[in-house]
Amino acid sequence: MIRVGILGATGYAGAEVSRLLALRDDVEITLLGSQSYVGQKFSDIYTNLRGILDLECEAGDVDTVVEKCDVVFTALPHGASKEVIPKLYEKGLTVIDLSGDFRYNDVKVYEKWYGDEHCAPHLLDVSVYGLPELHREEIKKTKLIANPGCYTTCSILAIAPLLDAKIGDTKNIIIDAKSGVTGAGRSAKVPSLFCECDESMKAYGVGTHRHTSEIEQELSLVAGEEIALSFTPHLIPIKRGILATSYVNLLKDVSAEELVSLYKEFYKGEKFVRILDAGKLPEIKNVAHSNYIEIGIVVDKRLGRAVIVSCIDNLIKGAAGQAVQNMNIVFGREESAGLLMPPTFV
Amino acid sequence: MIRVGILGATGYAGAEVSRLLALRDDVEITLLGSQSYVGQKFSDIYTNLRGILDLECEAGDVDTVVEKCDVVFTALPHGASKEVIPKLYEKGLTVIDLSGDFRYNDVKVYEKWYGDEHCAPHLLDVSVYGLPELHREEIKKTKLIANPGCYTTCSILAIAPLLDAKIGDTKNIIIDAKSGVTGAGRSAKVPSLFCECDESMKAYGVGTHRHTSEIEQELSLVAGEEIALSFTPHLIPIKRGILATSYVNLLKDVSAEELVSLYKEFYKGEKFVRILDAGKLPEIKNVAHSNYIEIGIVVDKRLGRAVIVSCIDNLIKGAAGQAVQNMNIVFGREESAGLLMPPTFV
Amino acid sequence: MIRVGILGATGYAGAEVSRLLALRDDVEITLLGSQSYVGQKFSDIYTNLRGILDLECEAGDVDTVVEKCDVVFTALPHGASKEVIPKLYEKGLTVIDLSGDFRYNDVKVYEKWYGDEHCAPHLLDVSVYGLPELHREEIKKTKLIANPGCYTTCSILAIAPLLDAKIGDTKNIIIDAKSGVTGAGRSAKVPSLFCECDESMKAYGVGTHRHTSEIEQELSLVAGEEIALSFTPHLIPIKRGILATSYVNLLKDVSAEELVSLYKEFYKGEKFVRILDAGKLPEIKNVAHSNYIEIGIVVDKRLGRAVIVSCIDNLIKGAAGQAVQNMNIVFGREESAGLLMPPTFV
Amino acid sequence: MIRVGILGATGYAGAEVSRLLALRDDVEITLLGSQSYVGQKFSDIYTNLRGILDLECEAGDVDTVVEKCDVVFTALPHGASKEVIPKLYEKGLTVIDLSGDFRYNDVKVYEKWYGDEHCAPHLLDVSVYGLPELHREEIKKTKLIANPGCYTTCSILAIAPLLDAKIGDTKNIIIDAKSGVTGAGRSAKVPSLFCECDESMKAYGVGTHRHTSEIEQELSLVAGEEIALSFTPHLIPIKRGILATSYVNLLKDVSAEELVSLYKEFYKGEKFVRILDAGKLPEIKNVAHSNYIEIGIVVDKRLGRAVIVSCIDNLIKGAAGQAVQNMNIVFGREESAGLLMPPTFV
Repeated sequence: MIRVGILGATGYAGAEVSRLLALRDDVEITLLGSQSYVGQKFSDIYTNLRGILDLECEAGDVDTVVEKCDVVFTALPHGASKEVIPKLYEKGLTVIDLSGDFRYNDVKVYEKWYGDEHCAPHLLDVSVYGLPELHREEIKKTKLIANPGCYTTCSILAIAPLLDAKIGDTKNIIIDAKSGVTGAGRSAKVPSLFCECDESMKAYGVGTHRHTSEIEQELSLVAGEEIALSFTPHLIPIKRGILATSYVNLLKDVSAEELVSLYKEFYKGEKFVRILDAGKLPEIKNVAHSNYIEIGIVVDKRLGRAVIVSCIDNLIKGAAGQAVQNMNIVFGREESAGLLMPPTFV
Repeated sequence: MIRVGILGATGYAGAEVSRLLALRDDVEITLLGSQSYVGQKFSDIYTNLRGILDLECEAGDVDTVVEKCDVVFTALPHGASKEVIPKLYEKGLTVIDLSGDFRYNDVKVYEKWYGDEHCAPHLLDVSVYGLPELHREEIKKTKLIANPGCYTTCSILAIAPLLDAKIGDTKNIIIDAKSGVTGAGRSAKVPSLFCECDESMKAYGVGTHRHTSEIEQELSLVAGEEIALSFTPHLIPIKRGILATSYVNLLKDVSAEELVSLYKEFYKGEKFVRILDAGKLPEIKNVAHSNYIEIGIVVDKRLGRAVIVSCIDNLIKGAAGQAVQNMNIVFGREESAGLLMPPTFV
Repeated sequence: MIRVGILGATGYAGAEVSRLLALRDDVEITLLGSQSYVGQKFSDIYTNLRGILDLECEAGDVDTVVEKCDVVFTALPHGASKEVIPKLYEKGLTVIDLSGDFRYNDVKVYEKWYGDEHCAPHLLDVSVYGLPELHREEIKKTKLIANPGCYTTCSILAIAPLLDAKIGDTKNIIIDAKSGVTGAGRSAKVPSLFCECDESMKAYGVGTHRHTSEIEQELSLVAGEEIALSFTPHLIPIKRGILATSYVNLLKDVSAEELVSLYKEFYKGEKFVRILDAGKLPEIKNVAHSNYIEIGIVVDKRLGRAVIVSCIDNLIKGAAGQAVQNMNIVFGREESAGLLMPPTFV
Repeated sequence: MIRVGILGATGYAGAEVSRLLALRDDVEITLLGSQSYVGQKFSDIYTNLRGILDLECEAGDVDTVVEKCDVVFTALPHGASKEVIPKLYEKGLTVIDLSGDFRYNDVKVYEKWYGDEHCAPHLLDVSVYGLPELHREEIKKTKLIANPGCYTTCSILAIAPLLDAKIGDTKNIIIDAKSGVTGAGRSAKVPSLFCECDESMKAYGVGTHRHTSEIEQELSLVAGEEIALSFTPHLIPIKRGILATSYVNLLKDVSAEELVSLYKEFYKGEKFVRILDAGKLPEIKNVAHSNYIEIGIVVDKRLGRAVIVSCIDNLIKGAAGQAVQNMNIVFGREESAGLLMPPTFV
């Protein structure tokens, strides 16, 4: 039995981790940490879980976490992770962090994009970027997993095979990404109100969104050279899901079919990656409420450019599902345990 | 291994049965019947199931069904069930029908509300109304289950305990129900277009909707007297979910707490019925993508009236999930097998 | 030129008054009052009005309002109206109040339903309930208009003709109403977040919603007897619009056609009331972004009951549009001035 | 009085022209043409217009149109325009065509992208591309206006100033555009159903969408050189609205503020173009139900790239509103007549 704690359990990502693990036979949720709801039953906040997860929320101080848990998922407000994680890590706990705090190899990149000094830079050497499709072996060996951001999972997996094969030009890469509103979290802010989002759409953080740096780090690793690219996030009126449209100039004259083969080979054996045949394109409903990523590839021969469309459920493959996938890897479980629910379509 | 066929697999209800069963260890989907998509892979129609359910659709003639299946779910267009089911039933198959054709005890009620002659009235004596919470013992013994309508499941379970206890006045019962658009099916009709439904709402079939007669039949059985009631369906711009608000005048001075106790007792041991404590009310998101029904009870002392609010996912507890629940009962499986996924909330 | 001030201009109702008046030739918006946004341009908050209404928000103290305005619309948070309006009224301003504070003839009813002492009960004799279809002549003569609530406008106009004609039973009246989320206002609360509302629905305030008392007051006046009724509000995932389904037992055997005639006669000459022919039912999209109310009537002969379905845009006929209609009446303008925009449908 | 006919009046674009003109004092709608609804009242199809536009639909043969109309808007299914328009044009009518048939200067471009022979190529010399901000003077002089596509209006106006000033690199231009579902029209197709679109998103026509060629034609004219670019349309679950995100590499080191000035100068005096100050970005709700286009500009100094975000209401500035704007120009009316309704925001 894996004893699991979730800090920040009442945010959307933390709650999704809780929901995904609530019925696992081999997992016991022993601690639900929340600043705002101490003493309240989790199922009074996430009323969908009445009778399923009625545990009371608690503050989740370090000692209690250490006593009760084998692994802790941290889904805390920005900046809080890097304060608490060093203490948990030192006590020997496995930590799966859903924030950006431990995703960088170079503390300078973190500090540049987050505008914030890092209080535990030594752990950046320890932490592993938790994208199993690229870093599975390292994940197996670490106790500190930096779970990737939602936009980044969707973007990196869409482009990596092209750069790995040296077919994509590392210049002029453009990622135009669209996200559902759960990405903005559960805090009560006017821009996240139903009436402000519904029937509308906007871009935000153009040229400055932090996930840019995460995508650049990982794609640079794959390409073996430094990459700078455009990443533009947008908000669309759906609850869950990200669709990213990526534009990469091609260095060779290849067909869509050839690229599809390349991608299928690159992701061979990956349970959660679906490469679509040439001529087919992903839709968010194909991955909603699931841990899949779906990738479709178009070659625009006229322009010598590949357009790659990719989709995930931002709360699952983009957050909680991937975190559980990482837990499965670290604890030697079947990697897909608890994650095989088929997408919902409607 | 239960060998399962689904006729009408490409409608929303049939597809949901398919999705719910696709990953069951003890079930093999051996036949997906579809008039419109013969020869096409199911996962080319429901693209969410790529790699999960790639079986080709076939016409599903009786002989093939009999050869390949132990149980067949019929989710056919209106009127088609009563043509094909007698043949399947005679061959000894277990049939779980999602249409209205075999839900009536009295063929006259069917013919009045459906305006259609019934070609197999003798089977109405055989068929059992597949609402496990009211008819579990009969379901165990039959091979022809008439799976209830979506509106009716949500309405009957909300009112039955009041009438069973002789606390609710059988006159002046009003059920005001609201449904998501999957209830209208997957056929291409202008009124079901996104732009016709979104940001709007309407009532329809006022005073004439067929589910009225189904609700009346079942509540009359519970009450031990003939009941006629108002049932008004509405369409709301969500994909899944039904919320019914039922108004019943009270014959006694009872509190909400007393009614809650009564309901909890009535549904004791029922895994999929959640009776909320007094002061709490259901929301569709509490049951979305799950097999639960949630029921909240208010007593308006001023008016001597109970207002009962109930919610289900129309495609699951209101159709496919309940059908699977019935299959589990008939085949001696754990009744909740494959149906315990927690509601999704967001 | 009518000089107009709007207090509480940055809430959805106040903003809609502003939008409706922004381009009127005969109206000048001279003051936009807001507690939270003093000194900010209105068009930086309601960015749709860039270049259309760029006036800066100000605190809106009484003296300034008196100096700058001929009429003031008060769209303030609950409870604030009854504090400020007496001062404005005493100075001779015409006040159109969008709150519940001056809607009651009997202060006891107010205090019972609002749980709050009224500090200016003497003005209840002065204030007129601003529903032009019922109180036009009184509106013409007052300087204090209590603009009706959104639910109430939609409900009262749907039922009044039946009671006026003594055809509807005053017992067992049930109004089941559904509202878009703008009804919850623009304040930042978790239950109003996109992800909490979208794809869901709930009832709230069952048996206790304040608009119940307002509906009862007005229908009692029409019926000439004291009426108590069930009113149940629900929240649906649309931005604008209310649909109310009202159930009234019939005292006579009448047809839908006869009732339609009765309603058409009752509302003869009313520009904003559309009575649908028998067999047709309203939809919110038929009135969206307009000042119309649409009413459809069904007679359920089997049960001796009328079911009346009515729709409005809650921000227009249910708030800002009706307020402007009242202003037009008081100031001797064409009653429909600035209010004839056709509904948007899509 | 301008006598107006609308052919294809029952599609979304045709209906929007009708709605915009229904209440104009100086316009009389004399003919509503529809193949499918001959003899039906328009307000029985677009029920929002009950009492506002009750005219019966008719087939709209050429002789009748010529007799009844001064100007005709053609909003016909693809391919039909080029059949009927030559006859109307020869009779001296002013024609405003909402199809792609007369938008090209070079018939070869039409035939390449539409895969269809053109039956009236001589009229391509006569027709004027009806984008007033670029071709106002030519519009004044023609009787055949090819009203631009929705995506193209939003894209061309966003990029033209950059190319006109020779600041934008004509290589590597990428336009990633997102449209509401009205763009797919009112025909009954499964992919346009509510349940297929809601809570999802997809790209379509990647590299092959016809509007690409229209954008390239117009931007090439502005730039004075041949341009080929990537244009990717997406479908998002809203009814109205387009948001385009355009990426253009910069040839000079300019700031966002400088580009904003450049754009403001380029569009000086244009009533329907809103250039946002640096640091602000458009949202669809800022232009919904209006004829405005809103343009925001970001300079990504790190990459030497401009990101331009633009928004329109696809049915108004992207179709019907622009068509009315063109009519106003041709008939010497105030260009903004009937088009000044403020955007709706909620």
